[in-house]
Amino acid sequence: MGDFQKVVLAYSGGVDTSACIPYLKNEYGVEEIIAFAADLGQGEELEVVRKKALLAGAKESLVDDLIEPFIHDFAFPAIRANALYEGRYPLSTALARPLIASRLVELAREMEAGAVAHGCTGKGNDQVRFDLAISSLAPHLKILTPAREWSMSRQELISYGEKFGIPAPVSKKSPYSIDLNLLGRSIEAGPLEDPFLAPREEVFQITSSIQESPDTPEEIEIQFEAGNPIAINGVTLDPVSIIKKANALAGRHGFGRIDMIENRVVGIKSREIYEAPGLMLLIKCHQEIESITLSADVLRTKVGIERQWADLVYQGFWFSPLKNALDAFIDRTQLDVNGSVKIQLFKGNATIQGRQSYSNSLYLPDIATYSAEDQYDHKSAEGFIYVWGLANRLWASINRDK
Amino acid sequence: MGDFQKVVLAYSGGVDTSACIPYLKNEYGVEEIIAFAADLGQGEELEVVRKKALLAGAKESLVDDLIEPFIHDFAFPAIRANALYEGRYPLSTALARPLIASRLVELAREMEAGAVAHGCTGKGNDQVRFDLAISSLAPHLKILTPAREWSMSRQELISYGEKFGIPAPVSKKSPYSIDLNLLGRSIEAGPLEDPFLAPREEVFQITSSIQESPDTPEEIEIQFEAGNPIAINGVTLDPVSIIKKANALAGRHGFGRIDMIENRVVGIKSREIYEAPGLMLLIKCHQEIESITLSADVLRTKVGIERQWADLVYQGFWFSPLKNALDAFIDRTQLDVNGSVKIQLFKGNATIQGRQSYSNSLYLPDIATYSAEDQYDHKSAEGFIYVWGLANRLWASINRDK
Amino acid sequence: MGDFQKVVLAYSGGVDTSACIPYLKNEYGVEEIIAFAADLGQGEELEVVRKKALLAGAKESLVDDLIEPFIHDFAFPAIRANALYEGRYPLSTALARPLIASRLVELAREMEAGAVAHGCTGKGNDQVRFDLAISSLAPHLKILTPAREWSMSRQELISYGEKFGIPAPVSKKSPYSIDLNLLGRSIEAGPLEDPFLAPREEVFQITSSIQESPDTPEEIEIQFEAGNPIAINGVTLDPVSIIKKANALAGRHGFGRIDMIENRVVGIKSREIYEAPGLMLLIKCHQEIESITLSADVLRTKVGIERQWADLVYQGFWFSPLKNALDAFIDRTQLDVNGSVKIQLFKGNATIQGRQSYSNSLYLPDIATYSAEDQYDHKSAEGFIYVWGLANRLWASINRDK
Amino acid sequence: MGDFQKVVLAYSGGVDTSACIPYLKNEYGVEEIIAFAADLGQGEELEVVRKKALLAGAKESLVDDLIEPFIHDFAFPAIRANALYEGRYPLSTALARPLIASRLVELAREMEAGAVAHGCTGKGNDQVRFDLAISSLAPHLKILTPAREWSMSRQELISYGEKFGIPAPVSKKSPYSIDLNLLGRSIEAGPLEDPFLAPREEVFQITSSIQESPDTPEEIEIQFEAGNPIAINGVTLDPVSIIKKANALAGRHGFGRIDMIENRVVGIKSREIYEAPGLMLLIKCHQEIESITLSADVLRTKVGIERQWADLVYQGFWFSPLKNALDAFIDRTQLDVNGSVKIQLFKGNATIQGRQSYSNSLYLPDIATYSAEDQYDHKSAEGFIYVWGLANRLWASINRDK
Repeated sequence: MGDFQKVVLAYSGGVDTSACIPYLKNEYGVEEIIAFAADLGQGEELEVVRKKALLAGAKESLVDDLIEPFIHDFAFPAIRANALYEGRYPLSTALARPLIASRLVELAREMEAGAVAHGCTGKGNDQVRFDLAISSLAPHLKILTPAREWSMSRQELISYGEKFGIPAPVSKKSPYSIDLNLLGRSIEAGPLEDPFLAPREEVFQITSSIQESPDTPEEIEIQFEAGNPIAINGVTLDPVSIIKKANALAGRHGFGRIDMIENRVVGIKSREIYEAPGLMLLIKCHQEIESITLSADVLRTKVGIERQWADLVYQGFWFSPLKNALDAFIDRTQLDVNGSVKIQLFKGNATIQGRQSYSNSLYLPDIATYSAEDQYDHKSAEGFIYVWGLANRLWASINRDK
Repeated sequence: MGDFQKVVLAYSGGVDTSACIPYLKNEYGVEEIIAFAADLGQGEELEVVRKKALLAGAKESLVDDLIEPFIHDFAFPAIRANALYEGRYPLSTALARPLIASRLVELAREMEAGAVAHGCTGKGNDQVRFDLAISSLAPHLKILTPAREWSMSRQELISYGEKFGIPAPVSKKSPYSIDLNLLGRSIEAGPLEDPFLAPREEVFQITSSIQESPDTPEEIEIQFEAGNPIAINGVTLDPVSIIKKANALAGRHGFGRIDMIENRVVGIKSREIYEAPGLMLLIKCHQEIESITLSADVLRTKVGIERQWADLVYQGFWFSPLKNALDAFIDRTQLDVNGSVKIQLFKGNATIQGRQSYSNSLYLPDIATYSAEDQYDHKSAEGFIYVWGLANRLWASINRDK
Repeated sequence: MGDFQKVVLAYSGGVDTSACIPYLKNEYGVEEIIAFAADLGQGEELEVVRKKALLAGAKESLVDDLIEPFIHDFAFPAIRANALYEGRYPLSTALARPLIASRLVELAREMEAGAVAHGCTGKGNDQVRFDLAISSLAPHLKILTPAREWSMSRQELISYGEKFGIPAPVSKKSPYSIDLNLLGRSIEAGPLEDPFLAPREEVFQITSSIQESPDTPEEIEIQFEAGNPIAINGVTLDPVSIIKKANALAGRHGFGRIDMIENRVVGIKSREIYEAPGLMLLIKCHQEIESITLSADVLRTKVGIERQWADLVYQGFWFSPLKNALDAFIDRTQLDVNGSVKIQLFKGNATIQGRQSYSNSLYLPDIATYSAEDQYDHKSAEGFIYVWGLANRLWASINRDK
Repeated sequence: MGDFQKVVLAYSGGVDTSACIPYLKNEYGVEEIIAFAADLGQGEELEVVRKKALLAGAKESLVDDLIEPFIHDFAFPAIRANALYEGRYPLSTALARPLIASRLVELAREMEAGAVAHGCTGKGNDQVRFDLAISSLAPHLKILTPAREWSMSRQELISYGEKFGIPAPVSKKSPYSIDLNLLGRSIEAGPLEDPFLAPREEVFQITSSIQESPDTPEEIEIQFEAGNPIAINGVTLDPVSIIKKANALAGRHGFGRIDMIENRVVGIKSREIYEAPGLMLLIKCHQEIESITLSADVLRTKVGIERQWADLVYQGFWFSPLKNALDAFIDRTQLDVNGSVKIQLFKGNATIQGRQSYSNSLYLPDIATYSAEDQYDHKSAEGFIYVWGLANRLWASINRDK
């Protein structure tokens, strides 16, 4: 396994990453472990997390607030890309991984660590995202993945931890596997593994159920500039505040729950529940403002690019030449994406009420309507249809009745 | 304009197609007009429509019940294709056009008519769909399109009609332009032309508003066989009954409204409102059963094929070699699409509760879960990630730090 | 037709555009015609052309040398895009149209002309390219297209011209319709209309036949920087000189002839012959240098983007938001496209001999070879294949033997 | 490693697969090895190969003539798909793998063997193709891959073989790694690993060099029915004879050599040389007959499908639901692909001379030409261009001059 004097470990405070600390020291011969936890708006008490790592044997334990770059550099590009993996999942967890990875790499360089480590197991997507992001940024940096190699059951893991002073979790373990950050929650495993069984209400925490959501609709307006949301209800907000506000609004009205069968990178179908109220709301409004500011052919092509962008990010290729090129395409289109969307939140629904763009609207009622004085040249339609259908008509005249 | 002794006219009973009858006789010199109206489940009194054509001067007036082929041959392929034009519009009106066109062509042949005619104007999509479908089926059959050529305002049109015994519409004209069949309603024009203004409740007729929908959720189960819906709540139904039942269920709970800026064939953006409760519900459930029965690569490729299928149908190419080939692709995939979807209808939402397939489920909990005794080879992940990220890692090692 | 005091006409010196001058004056009531001819390296005596326009009645006659922008701003982006319409035609004529159109618009603005005009007929692609480029740059500028509206046969056209002092062509008209610029020649019509008949040798002028090409091969090396060809055989050349040199080399050895059935914008198949020796050679070498400097996923995605880029340019959308966005994608990829290609020209063949990139080669022999001391982790293959084939294996285990 | 009493081994006669026999017995504890060699037209003396396996210790040794299914069921679908991996490689080796795999699976079932085995190493594509094809056909059949696991150098391998009675190769080992069947030869490694060095003439065996090819051109005609080549020069031939004849013709004139940097499944770029004269000729002619019988939109869509088909086959997914669906698309299009192509073979070139289809030609000279009496409605062009460019013109009128 090589001898790594110093290793930077992506640390979450859970029993798995805690157990990594003695494991790395004892099984991999690591001498110094620097634990690193990122504040991505998950709302945990990170000072507690920081101390846990020290108790588990880390030499140093660092916590960084990465919320602002998380939203500005990862969530906003995803909104511009209308990124929905398999048409549904807004990548709320996936977007965090390359950011954590890049901070791991920076820390390894700053501290002259010989390796980085993470606690992902061998069946999920996150191991792929961490490994690929790290090796894209530092192709020669060694990555240690104890949890992929040990074969301890959960109970064995807890016992192993206790041997090294890691306290067993006080509360009964939730049957679910949960990931959380400012963009949303990902919930899997436990009773969710039966794909024909509806998720219990207990799995949701940041979105209201339809029943419990307010009985009065709420209409809001979101403003976009160059494809980025910049204001809600006329109040200009910084990116982090936009997400928080959107989370609060959409979550309260029960919008933003997802229940899907998803195809993991490693070839497995899994059943996933997500809550991402703000991100889902902003993507929906972004799609709407695009519908009035982008031309049909740009929209059609962008849909394919968006799918591919979401696939790449889901699959771990945030730092890659293909994603760079897709970003160039997307960003070029967003120059025209300026305007406002009015949307009603009510009982789990986010219903578009209207959309407008003073500077870039391609919707021209004088052209679209059927009024007598309209500006469209009706006569052109006949010529257009003659040519538009010509190849098909020729095909039919040759191939019909055979 | 040529001399056409006999012409078959697509007839709706409205003032436009009624005015076509005297216009074709007087301006085009047509001697005999056979009016043809299709029953597509629009729920009108078609005997009244039939007589109107005779009063307006048609030699013969025919009404055909095409509901069954409409659903079986047009709506069900659209469900298998998850066909949503620009990701939203389920083609409820567009699907009717090629069926009417094919009946027009059959009638023209049976009756030895020299031409067919329709009353579409020059800015919409339906003219394109009629013209292309007709000329694909009968490349040499002449198509007369009086409404594309006359330049009468609505008032002039009514006056023109009155001269030839066509009564002016008794009620004040609705400000909207509406199309209706068993699959749904399309509403445009009038106050809807302001894209920033929410549609008034009056535009909707077959879906409940969220407010007025029941306060109790309703859970239903829809069963699919080879990609076609065949039963609701365990009761096997023929295709027409499936659509009717789905319309009733989804409509009552306020699901199936669409408000969008849409790109017409003729290069114009227009604002469209649709109600298609049953079709939207069935497509949503079909996507869900596919998510558990089709592999990731089939789903990814099919998404692109679906988009193209919807574009072709929207744009008039129902009868075309490309659509034939796309159908071959889609139908091949549907052999595996068998199973059931559980869905909750409530306050405008259709929330998937579960999905299962006894014969074709590719979701294998033993593989997907993280339990100790699982069947997945954890060790493989490392090898996979090594190879999966190799090209990107090589790129990074060459191109970083330059 | 409106009264246009002053009109700028795209002028070629041929009998068609010459006849446009009196026709515009007499039939359209134009008072002043400014003829404009572009020097795109077609090798004609443009001073003669310029005078012809004056003789035909133009008020002013201008000739602009546009060769440098033609190559730098139009041909080089096409090389970076490996642009081959329908996989074959390198757009040699199509690329000239938006440049001429933009100069027409500039002139109309400088001279305060109320319209521009061109002499294209109604079945070709160039009318589409001119009209779309002009209206993209100046949406409200009127475009006059006499040749699309008159219905004169060639003989009638000559007679019409003679009435207004335009001399009949001295030599017998070639049976072919030909377009020529520095990028190549396009030949159509006449005996070429029989698609089963090989083109006679007479249609070719800038490429040698295989028989008459040298009996000795010639090996050359072309160097690329950021996707642009910058040197041949070690000699750095400006863009125009690169094209000229490549034309001479490839033409002499008989490389760069194309004979194809092509799908025109207007829905018609036509048989086209092209000679584009230099452009074809540079595209071939550019594809080769990309094969060693771009990663597999970038290459795969770029192939689709390239097809679409070629379609857009062929179809007249040079100035369009979609092409802008495709260019952003392409240009982002080209940063890595640096290196050299060795190619042998011989008897109609351009055979790649080798390719290398000091700075960006992703071909690493230590990784690719099978030698004992290689750096690739053989063991990873098994893990990779386990995961790579997992979804397909699951599908098979569920769906086989049914 | 499990105890496998009986194993079917894919056997080639080379030192690697020969060494597998004692290795499987000694290291894996296999008791009975059935060697299987396929005759795919590689032109070897297979009776010699068969006996070699017995000498190396196989219990049984089988040779099957699979040439006919190889061409009919694997090569002909590839021709219909115009399958060229990365636009160049016609899959001559890749197509053989799923056929061999399916025979291995059949033999394992017939003989009640507990596993199959092959001798591929861990860096190539063939291991992926074998493993995936086998596990698609028999998801639970164990696959043994000794050559991926041993770590013997070539010299060690020869010594190991000698210990078990496998004679060392008599002739000095060629520096190249070569695969051969009726469709062509694949050559890699050795001096070819320098990608800037041209391949020596010695690597080619079934195609003439340009220099040594005949000094007289040869014109041939190939006829297609439903997309399959069925006759050359008017003589109807069965599939195997068509390939043989095409190989002889094209090979003699030096057509069908490929030199490329290719992206392997496992993420590595490698330099590959191929000779596939007949297959390349037939694909080229097939593309040509399609250009006159398929409509533009079918051709455009099929190009993408073809790329994906080639990727799937290259990457091992011959037996997969996605390939099945792509085949359904392709086969539907091929109904119209009937006609003849005339092609001139000369000095490394295969130059299309003409193409025709009595039953399905969509090239209609009356429509395409510019003659006075043509059938195309010139006036339509203006209407078409008005609508075709409308969205772009609207965009320009909103977005220019800002």
